[in-house]
Amino acid sequence: MGKESTKSSLEEKRLGFKVEVFPSLKNVQDAYLKEEGNVLKLMAHETQHSPPLRVGVMFSGGPAPGGLNVLWGMYKGLKEIHSESVLVGFLDGAGGFLADNQLVIGEEEIATIKNQGGFTLLGTGRTKIETEEQMQEAAAVVKKNRLQGLVFIGGDDTNTNAYHLAKYFEKEKVRCSVVGIPKTIDGDLKGEGIEASFGFDTATKTYSSMIGNLNKDALSAKKYWFFVKLMGRSASHVTLECALQTRPNLAFISEEVQKKKTTLKEIVEEVAKAVVERAKEDKNYGTVLIPEGLIEACSDMKAMIDACNVNRSVGKGIEALTGNEKELFESLPLSIQKQLQKDLDPHGNMQLSHVSTDQLIAEMVEERVKDNEAVKFKVVPVFYGYDGRCALPSNFDATYCYNLGMIAAILVRDRKTGFMAAIKNLHLPVSEWDGMAIPIDGMMSTERRHGKEKLVIAKALVDLKGAPFKEFSKKRGKWIKSDAYLAPGPIQFDDEASAFEKTLTLVLERKKRSFF
Amino acid sequence: MGKESTKSSLEEKRLGFKVEVFPSLKNVQDAYLKEEGNVLKLMAHETQHSPPLRVGVMFSGGPAPGGLNVLWGMYKGLKEIHSESVLVGFLDGAGGFLADNQLVIGEEEIATIKNQGGFTLLGTGRTKIETEEQMQEAAAVVKKNRLQGLVFIGGDDTNTNAYHLAKYFEKEKVRCSVVGIPKTIDGDLKGEGIEASFGFDTATKTYSSMIGNLNKDALSAKKYWFFVKLMGRSASHVTLECALQTRPNLAFISEEVQKKKTTLKEIVEEVAKAVVERAKEDKNYGTVLIPEGLIEACSDMKAMIDACNVNRSVGKGIEALTGNEKELFESLPLSIQKQLQKDLDPHGNMQLSHVSTDQLIAEMVEERVKDNEAVKFKVVPVFYGYDGRCALPSNFDATYCYNLGMIAAILVRDRKTGFMAAIKNLHLPVSEWDGMAIPIDGMMSTERRHGKEKLVIAKALVDLKGAPFKEFSKKRGKWIKSDAYLAPGPIQFDDEASAFEKTLTLVLERKKRSFF
Repeated sequence: MGKESTKSSLEEKRLGFKVEVFPSLKNVQDAYLKEEGNVLKLMAHETQHSPPLRVGVMFSGGPAPGGLNVLWGMYKGLKEIHSESVLVGFLDGAGGFLADNQLVIGEEEIATIKNQGGFTLLGTGRTKIETEEQMQEAAAVVKKNRLQGLVFIGGDDTNTNAYHLAKYFEKEKVRCSVVGIPKTIDGDLKGEGIEASFGFDTATKTYSSMIGNLNKDALSAKKYWFFVKLMGRSASHVTLECALQTRPNLAFISEEVQKKKTTLKEIVEEVAKAVVERAKEDKNYGTVLIPEGLIEACSDMKAMIDACNVNRSVGKGIEALTGNEKELFESLPLSIQKQLQKDLDPHGNMQLSHVSTDQLIAEMVEERVKDNEAVKFKVVPVFYGYDGRCALPSNFDATYCYNLGMIAAILVRDRKTGFMAAIKNLHLPVSEWDGMAIPIDGMMSTERRHGKEKLVIAKALVDLKGAPFKEFSKKRGKWIKSDAYLAPGPIQFDDEASAFEKTLTLVLERKKRSFF
Repeated sequence: MGKESTKSSLEEKRLGFKVEVFPSLKNVQDAYLKEEGNVLKLMAHETQHSPPLRVGVMFSGGPAPGGLNVLWGMYKGLKEIHSESVLVGFLDGAGGFLADNQLVIGEEEIATIKNQGGFTLLGTGRTKIETEEQMQEAAAVVKKNRLQGLVFIGGDDTNTNAYHLAKYFEKEKVRCSVVGIPKTIDGDLKGEGIEASFGFDTATKTYSSMIGNLNKDALSAKKYWFFVKLMGRSASHVTLECALQTRPNLAFISEEVQKKKTTLKEIVEEVAKAVVERAKEDKNYGTVLIPEGLIEACSDMKAMIDACNVNRSVGKGIEALTGNEKELFESLPLSIQKQLQKDLDPHGNMQLSHVSTDQLIAEMVEERVKDNEAVKFKVVPVFYGYDGRCALPSNFDATYCYNLGMIAAILVRDRKTGFMAAIKNLHLPVSEWDGMAIPIDGMMSTERRHGKEKLVIAKALVDLKGAPFKEFSKKRGKWIKSDAYLAPGPIQFDDEASAFEKTLTLVLERKKRSFF
């Protein structure tokens, strides 16, 4: 069989994957949004008539699998509302929107993006609409394009800004609905009514597939410790989900480290202990999952950085460190000391975000065990992150996103603004899903940023009392010494063979019972 | 649906995947090996009767997907030959074999390993059977266990040693067939009669899936250059296959670099040129594939290392370098200079194998473009290697390995020794495959190792006149500036949806025509 034909058959399969629509969405013209408390619930059987709509849409921030299906769902919904509706895509995020760089999305564009990965077609960007001036520009672009709706596909920051823009539009009487779609592979945009952000499912399955392979390699070659760094600066949802899916020997959750005021020293000690204990049983191999923000959560590292920056503010250098802070700094590998002295933020402050967490811990553990002759400690550092953001979406993300897009179209039709499209009962079959719209308002809280109080959507951190973390903390003790590894394999698009039909985090949070 | 049930359904699907057997193997009792020139060809329709057999088997070297199916095929073949045959697995490679650490493989073991990834169950090792003493020990283990056959699943070194052991057994009248199975994800064990080593297909598909995701991320976020390092020290088959599957902006093939005497400077220049050219079109992103052995192939790096080591042998240090070598050394990033001075081999010689190739090139390119204001050069270094060695085998590797195992059983039954099991026409459907046995003898050539002439299987390097490289060199010019990226997606086990049914390298080599 020729290459070309087999290659295109996968793409065709994905393009042809029939996305299911849940019952109340089956006929968009009959679907309406009913107020229930402060949320809107999608209902059927009340035919709505609408003139054609013109709606703008843009991606914002890092890509996440499923984004293109939001466009597909929006397009489908808008066309069902009125065949002459128009979907205007803005290029490269809010920057392109403010500059009115656009692409009208038609049948031909949709045909190429169904169930595909990435934020291609439109691209994305990091520009934020925050200032009064930017909001004026946004209003101008909306008016120029006669848009009744503007849909932001993004994370917590993007949805925060969407909220403020909706308020601004209301105040300035710009008749344009602003709607948010909860996106992030980090999984930290959830809470009241938002059960999961899209992309998290595919990304964690992609990482877990690779970690599972490493687990098997550890168990086959029996000579490597894989230190796997995973995305997640303040929230460790990705690490927690991957740990549940693959059962590594160790996994660290930044939220727990922060809560318990764990020190870097203690973490190094914990890893070294596992390495030594396993070596005693001739197991000079293992896997450790490390969220990239881990060292920023360590109490001693934070204290040291603070002390450094206080010293610096009075014109002193690192040599002015004393006590524990001095000791800690000097215990760090030289390469890390240099990194810290070099990578200063724009204010000249030392920062931890550029320090290679996995390498730091690996080097410190190595130092700690090197004199133990029973231990052969060979580390392979691995980082999974960018390679999961644009994977072909899992069936779950493909379906979830398509339906979110449809709901966004209905929100615009019904002139609702300041809402995020949402779906309830995501852990159940699609036939039991409920369409919703959650007021972004209710997700806002006050945070101090750059010395000012600001209304923002707080990042959802791992809940240490939640079912996923409880499941993990109940089981992890056994994983250290036994080889309880799982290898879920690559994502299967064939319905019946789906590796994990739903992310464990989602199912555990919703079902609140153990699946192991 | 509960987690447990969906998870096990994938494993069950893989366990239940019905491996096809090609026609002449359909009935093992009727299959026999016919001499054709110096190879043996598997034929049907001549019933063979055999007493029960006792056969030993071991893994050797790095794991490769499909290895467990070799065990399954051997087991099946041996049981078809005689229901009382016994398959003895040796633990942790040749080391475990010489110590007679064994596991008798029965129905229960087979039930858990079908179509699974890794060299679990037995483990693997790097011990080589080379010395006279080791061969005596090997003979003792064979006699103690009354083995009529010994099957080595390994790469070029392992099969070299299998050959010498077969000769030794013949000389010493140890009546035990020695059979090799061609394994390596590097793809460098092929040639006369061996069309492909097993594992290469799955590993390159696994890497290509991730590289495809990075391609999409480059095109979505438009802000990163992904420098992807891939396994392959002397041979670049993996990089070539992944390049054909994903169409990165640049990919380097060590064999070409060596042939053309390309310098590190020229490689850096080539990458920098692509970075600058793309930046002119506002494309500050891209993907570059780099085989891990690349810098060892650079003529200037080799000359510098040689000069260093000559100096060192007369008691001088790096300060004694002159001319081009001095200039090159000083042009290297400080971190690399230090790495070179630190990582000496056991003879105190400088070596390149520990230098991080991708990081070196990234840093030098950065230095080269940093004053160009039109260029935003943000590199993300990535390494794929260990995460592809134990993936769930593709349908191709699963089927190939099972059949190889069956052939190995027949070789032992027919008292053939010094052969590698092989299959012809791998690029065609299984129904057109031909079972073979290739004398390892014919693959041996003389190499100078450690000052001595030695008979070894030479590593198969990328053939610069072969169809895969030609296809690549014909197309690559277009990939630099255009975004011709492909993203093949994860391996699909569903037959009809297989991402790529066969590796492109194999198909191109066999069909000798273009598939693009």
